[in-house]
Amino acid sequence: MKDAFNKIVVSSRIRLARNIAGLPFPQKLDGEQAFGFMKKISDLLQENGSFKACLMSQINDIEKRALVEKHLISPDLAKKNRYGAVIMSQDESISVMLNEEDHIREQSIVKGFDLQLAFQKIKKVDQKIIANVGLAYDDKLGFLTSCPTNVGTGMRASVMMFLPALTKTGKIPALIKALEQKRMTVRGIYGEGSESEGYLYQVSNKISLGFSEEEIVEIVSNAVEKICQMEIDEANAIFNANKIAMTDRIMRSKGILTNAYVLSTQEFFERFADVKLGISLGLIKCKDVGRFDDFLVGVLPANLMLNKGSAMNETERDLYRASYTRENLNKILN
Amino acid sequence: MKDAFNKIVVSSRIRLARNIAGLPFPQKLDGEQAFGFMKKISDLLQENGSFKACLMSQINDIEKRALVEKHLISPDLAKKNRYGAVIMSQDESISVMLNEEDHIREQSIVKGFDLQLAFQKIKKVDQKIIANVGLAYDDKLGFLTSCPTNVGTGMRASVMMFLPALTKTGKIPALIKALEQKRMTVRGIYGEGSESEGYLYQVSNKISLGFSEEEIVEIVSNAVEKICQMEIDEANAIFNANKIAMTDRIMRSKGILTNAYVLSTQEFFERFADVKLGISLGLIKCKDVGRFDDFLVGVLPANLMLNKGSAMNETERDLYRASYTRENLNKILN
Repeated sequence: MKDAFNKIVVSSRIRLARNIAGLPFPQKLDGEQAFGFMKKISDLLQENGSFKACLMSQINDIEKRALVEKHLISPDLAKKNRYGAVIMSQDESISVMLNEEDHIREQSIVKGFDLQLAFQKIKKVDQKIIANVGLAYDDKLGFLTSCPTNVGTGMRASVMMFLPALTKTGKIPALIKALEQKRMTVRGIYGEGSESEGYLYQVSNKISLGFSEEEIVEIVSNAVEKICQMEIDEANAIFNANKIAMTDRIMRSKGILTNAYVLSTQEFFERFADVKLGISLGLIKCKDVGRFDDFLVGVLPANLMLNKGSAMNETERDLYRASYTRENLNKILN
Repeated sequence: MKDAFNKIVVSSRIRLARNIAGLPFPQKLDGEQAFGFMKKISDLLQENGSFKACLMSQINDIEKRALVEKHLISPDLAKKNRYGAVIMSQDESISVMLNEEDHIREQSIVKGFDLQLAFQKIKKVDQKIIANVGLAYDDKLGFLTSCPTNVGTGMRASVMMFLPALTKTGKIPALIKALEQKRMTVRGIYGEGSESEGYLYQVSNKISLGFSEEEIVEIVSNAVEKICQMEIDEANAIFNANKIAMTDRIMRSKGILTNAYVLSTQEFFERFADVKLGISLGLIKCKDVGRFDDFLVGVLPANLMLNKGSAMNETERDLYRASYTRENLNKILN
């Protein structure tokens, strides 16, 4: 089952919001205050050499946008040139934003469906910070945060899911409504703002107060499992209703992704959704679903440009996206 | 150059029309007369075991249609159940029709552009027949045939060419006109009567009187070389005018042919034309152009059914055509 779910869940993320005791929230900080705690956290995390620090004021727009596309920083942080920073582990599975909405936002993203692993990873970072930095904490409320919805555990557990079948059959609105009632949020992810990327969704807990971290992980995991099963059932139903046409469509999309010379973001995501469905239905074999999902970030504009090492206009990107896709997709599909 | 021309010329064929002296032409033969010379020719050709005889009255419609698709017999012979027959070499490079328009129609087809080879092959068969059978021959006119256009050498030298570039740019009508003036004929080949097969043409001599066999081979060969060069120039011109869009189209067609699950004859030929152009332009590598050209016959209805070993309706054929194409095309393209 886990394996089937991993074909639907792209990544699992835990985020913890933390603030320094006795300091105003970031929007009211002055430079001295901001840089003071930034240096402290940065030195603390980098002391064993496995983290790298990155000041928003010192990287260019393409680099910023690439970090946003990878979900390592938020679009808001990218805009904060003065005091914003991110400290990332070398493998980029952990990133700690400084001076975003809160002083500290610790995050761990892992591939596939494994909130528990992401939680274990970020817990280590969190424990180190708690042990070394005085954080704003209230015995009754828990961690204090800039926005009241984060007060308590300061935790958001979120899972990125690829749901082409539920999207195509129009079942997402009802799903959103049902999850809202269970205090969960579902939102579409649009890396480049394109409609056709609309098969990607983030499912997360809405509030972080009144539950333990472990409970939140469990609540979100249970919901995600149910959504995975719905997507699988829906995909099978669509497939069984028209096996030949669906197989043809899926296999053609594979043929086009592995051969085309020009690929727009929009077409890429349409074809990608077909192939992902094909993998999920067992029509296409994929050696490494994690690497397949890497395309979801790899084909976005800034990551393409960073990969190529130069700025590109849209036409150039469509060509490069196609060659990038051909080269990397053939290695993992057969 | 020869190699480039072989990517355009699918096959080369020499046909010789012969008739038995003292017998009425086939349409006026009675059974005793017909079977008499049929047995003689059949025994003569089969005496060393490398030929097989096939009576039209003894094979089913699918088998007949498959022979027509392979150009081993004419549609007219397929209709003649009573006295029609064909004697073919095991490799099918030589076929001798009996009781078609003439008593004997000897034919050799070879892959690629090599009328000389086809001529050498059929000459051996012809010499054997001349040495053993009394043929209708006039010292002044040459071989006598049912239709006056074949009188003389009784020879038709024809070349099957794939001309997508000249077709798409509308240059075929002018080409036909120019060749008519040189007493040559160009006609489109429609294996299944589909418009989209319209990239295939047969170029041949119009009359067989007044030239030696060698001269006819040379005249047709020279014309074909010129047409090949025109097609190459035209293909390069189209390609250079829009390299990106053309490459994209060609590569997508390759991707679809090697992956699709359903392929109509019409779509097959459209995609095939793109890939053939891609091979000709050097964009796609093909290990064996001869085997690639085999698809032109292999995907036709009767040959598909013969290959599968059972009758199929159109929907079933479209599925089988796709699997046949996937399986065989991947072996020769890379």
